[in-house]
Amino acid sequence: MKTFLGPKDLPSIEYALKEARFIKENRFADQHLGTNKTILLVFFNSSLRTRLSTQKAAMNLGMNTIVLDINQGAWKLETERGVIMDGDKSEHILEAIPVMSSYCDIVGVRSFAGLKDKKYDYNETIINQFIQYSGKPVISMESATVHPMQAFADLITIEEYKDKARPKVVMTWAPHPKVLPQAVPNSFAQWMNATDYEFVITHPKGYELEPEFVGNAIVDYDQNKALKGADFVYAKNWSACMEPHYGEILSMDRDWTVDTKKMALTNNAYFMHCLPVRRGMIVSDDVIESPRSLVIQEAANREISAQTVIKEVLKSL
Amino acid sequence: MKTFLGPKDLPSIEYALKEARFIKENRFADQHLGTNKTILLVFFNSSLRTRLSTQKAAMNLGMNTIVLDINQGAWKLETERGVIMDGDKSEHILEAIPVMSSYCDIVGVRSFAGLKDKKYDYNETIINQFIQYSGKPVISMESATVHPMQAFADLITIEEYKDKARPKVVMTWAPHPKVLPQAVPNSFAQWMNATDYEFVITHPKGYELEPEFVGNAIVDYDQNKALKGADFVYAKNWSACMEPHYGEILSMDRDWTVDTKKMALTNNAYFMHCLPVRRGMIVSDDVIESPRSLVIQEAANREISAQTVIKEVLKSL
Amino acid sequence: MKTFLGPKDLPSIEYALKEARFIKENRFADQHLGTNKTILLVFFNSSLRTRLSTQKAAMNLGMNTIVLDINQGAWKLETERGVIMDGDKSEHILEAIPVMSSYCDIVGVRSFAGLKDKKYDYNETIINQFIQYSGKPVISMESATVHPMQAFADLITIEEYKDKARPKVVMTWAPHPKVLPQAVPNSFAQWMNATDYEFVITHPKGYELEPEFVGNAIVDYDQNKALKGADFVYAKNWSACMEPHYGEILSMDRDWTVDTKKMALTNNAYFMHCLPVRRGMIVSDDVIESPRSLVIQEAANREISAQTVIKEVLKSL
Repeated sequence: MKTFLGPKDLPSIEYALKEARFIKENRFADQHLGTNKTILLVFFNSSLRTRLSTQKAAMNLGMNTIVLDINQGAWKLETERGVIMDGDKSEHILEAIPVMSSYCDIVGVRSFAGLKDKKYDYNETIINQFIQYSGKPVISMESATVHPMQAFADLITIEEYKDKARPKVVMTWAPHPKVLPQAVPNSFAQWMNATDYEFVITHPKGYELEPEFVGNAIVDYDQNKALKGADFVYAKNWSACMEPHYGEILSMDRDWTVDTKKMALTNNAYFMHCLPVRRGMIVSDDVIESPRSLVIQEAANREISAQTVIKEVLKSL
Repeated sequence: MKTFLGPKDLPSIEYALKEARFIKENRFADQHLGTNKTILLVFFNSSLRTRLSTQKAAMNLGMNTIVLDINQGAWKLETERGVIMDGDKSEHILEAIPVMSSYCDIVGVRSFAGLKDKKYDYNETIINQFIQYSGKPVISMESATVHPMQAFADLITIEEYKDKARPKVVMTWAPHPKVLPQAVPNSFAQWMNATDYEFVITHPKGYELEPEFVGNAIVDYDQNKALKGADFVYAKNWSACMEPHYGEILSMDRDWTVDTKKMALTNNAYFMHCLPVRRGMIVSDDVIESPRSLVIQEAANREISAQTVIKEVLKSL
Repeated sequence: MKTFLGPKDLPSIEYALKEARFIKENRFADQHLGTNKTILLVFFNSSLRTRLSTQKAAMNLGMNTIVLDINQGAWKLETERGVIMDGDKSEHILEAIPVMSSYCDIVGVRSFAGLKDKKYDYNETIINQFIQYSGKPVISMESATVHPMQAFADLITIEEYKDKARPKVVMTWAPHPKVLPQAVPNSFAQWMNATDYEFVITHPKGYELEPEFVGNAIVDYDQNKALKGADFVYAKNWSACMEPHYGEILSMDRDWTVDTKKMALTNNAYFMHCLPVRRGMIVSDDVIESPRSLVIQEAANREISAQTVIKEVLKSL
């Protein structure tokens, strides 16, 4: 496996889930694969879970890990071509990428959507430059449009907690004070579509996601109706995806906040969120602190999803 | 050992000192304990000695180490409950703590006193949240009211240099241009009280420490008198501890600076300070550079105190 | 080897190049040397290549690595003596150096020239304080006047690509919008002089380097003439070195930019630059992207030069 951006990069969902179950019980069983191999984790943006869980996963596999925060201790990078570089950016990404990758065997990249230019974001310009110029396997640690190790961890978590073969999973938009990318809902939808769940997306009008991610999901603008009978409620904010409102906040309607009244509509559903989460905006304190909240379990499974992915890459080296 | 905040968390002072002596001569003897174990070091505040010595100690023990600077590359954390999170803080510590701890076996936490709200600080609100919510052993790398790995290192140093069974140890307040916590003097007093030394504290009126830390120490407001016959002089600044002046600077009196004239009052005492130290404020250049200065030895023993503590935690996993 | 600032610190250039060739083919062959040894990399300034390549080199040798960014998560350091420390700097470098070095076996230091006080810079005040006070071997990761692991990597690269015993190597000044140190041109000249190449330096009048670095090089103010017949073109900007203009920009003449017209004057030369490079200022896009550009190979050889140097230090411990 030379690139990891989504479920199609893994041999199959069944294989990936089987591997994940094995790894969760045998975290240190594959260190022969990682010995004298180095993973470089490049962060253009903030990170807590991804930063820690990916390091941990790589160390479980016996790898050396190097963390690089661009713009903290490194040079600012120019990402556009054909520029006279007489400003504050000292280095071009076209040099920086092959240089960085020359010191490692695998590159992980975190680079959020800019949310200014949809074409630039949805072309995955930054991570595709890494794929094109690094000469090394590249893993998305959340790129402009996807966050695959998160969605894979979410899937592992649902598999662990579901009590029927085909649970109803509802992904609901919820309000947030700042503009957020669509990477998490895109990937979650993509991974849900790769399984055989009943999958529903609910959001206010104007928050439609790209059809390539929505796939066969049912889209319902009525949150209350969508939540009925849900076994899992996956809350997430995102900004508008469709032009001419790309990257805009169209609503901060707190009626969409997931609280006990909303959860009462469900089939005693589990609550999920990728974190970080704004309490009082996305979810009420009592829902996130309830025994049906799986947010910590999802986060803990980030180590497992990352290790499954990195192991697969290591096997291909 | 599941928590390390002070001497009472170790089996005994004698045991701890014996272990420290063993570790100093055999730094790599216990790597079987740390193999495939990970320590996460969480810094809410700046650190030099603690950052380096704790990493080194953990690596000596064969552990994997992950360093996390909150507010540098991670999300800003909300620490209050019941807040509508619509400001600059993206994540609540109630989620962040169990998430962070899910990727490690031991958590080290550095979180200084805010010095605004004595009750909040002296309740050790932050580190106690880690103890309560992490589900993992928690080590203080200086929390609001204590800095136990520092005081333990100081004790190791005194044991190495004392030439009588019961030396006179004098902890003296000294001036400083900025507001500092009481964590170091609190812990130093606590560890001195756990031994059988002659222990004296001297400071200007108004700088009284909490009785639970002062213990049986003699408190003398006359620095010159206190220093007489001292075998060890431990200098440190702290801000006022008692209400209504909690966290205030009451004096910047340079007469309290430890210089050669002050040291001449002692029994050719060793000079000690936990570092970082302001030269010209706390201590004169000639005293800190003299052969009787132990500041570097204390710092070097931070590796030993940390390794002793971490080893004890590892044994309990 | 207890200090690494230049070619004279290695047994010989021939030995160093032989070791480099061995290491490039056998990166993990010497891990017995680094086991339970720790390298501390102290950065006072930004770094990408040095940060990554030196970590990688040390890990190849089985070492533990600790990276410390001064001013990011550590205390600000006072570097002058005899100061009353009542400002923003919490710690004196005279304490910080022996403390930091007490937690490691080798110290790497990056500390750029301030370019305000030539004597201070050319005395290598900072790194010499590390050499004097650390009690540990010290490696320059670019200090005020030299960048020896860069120049060694450049030499390795020329040896790999030269097709005659004694190639013509031309180091040319090129324009840049910001004030840069002379460390790279100084070291490059020093290492070229330590070999038997035809070595030419070209720059506008006023950009003369110190004679101790220029050595026997031919200095030509006519770039076009200098480039004739060159086998390797090494481009670099630096600020004026000679008083009273030390650290000043005397020219931003884009006629000195290395473009295809300039390269057409050469013997189909390879283009070299240490990176980071400002495209459009130092070099045109087509030259740096051409098959004759060696900038990525030079950077990749930073791992090799660093590993050769660290191995030599480890052998002396």
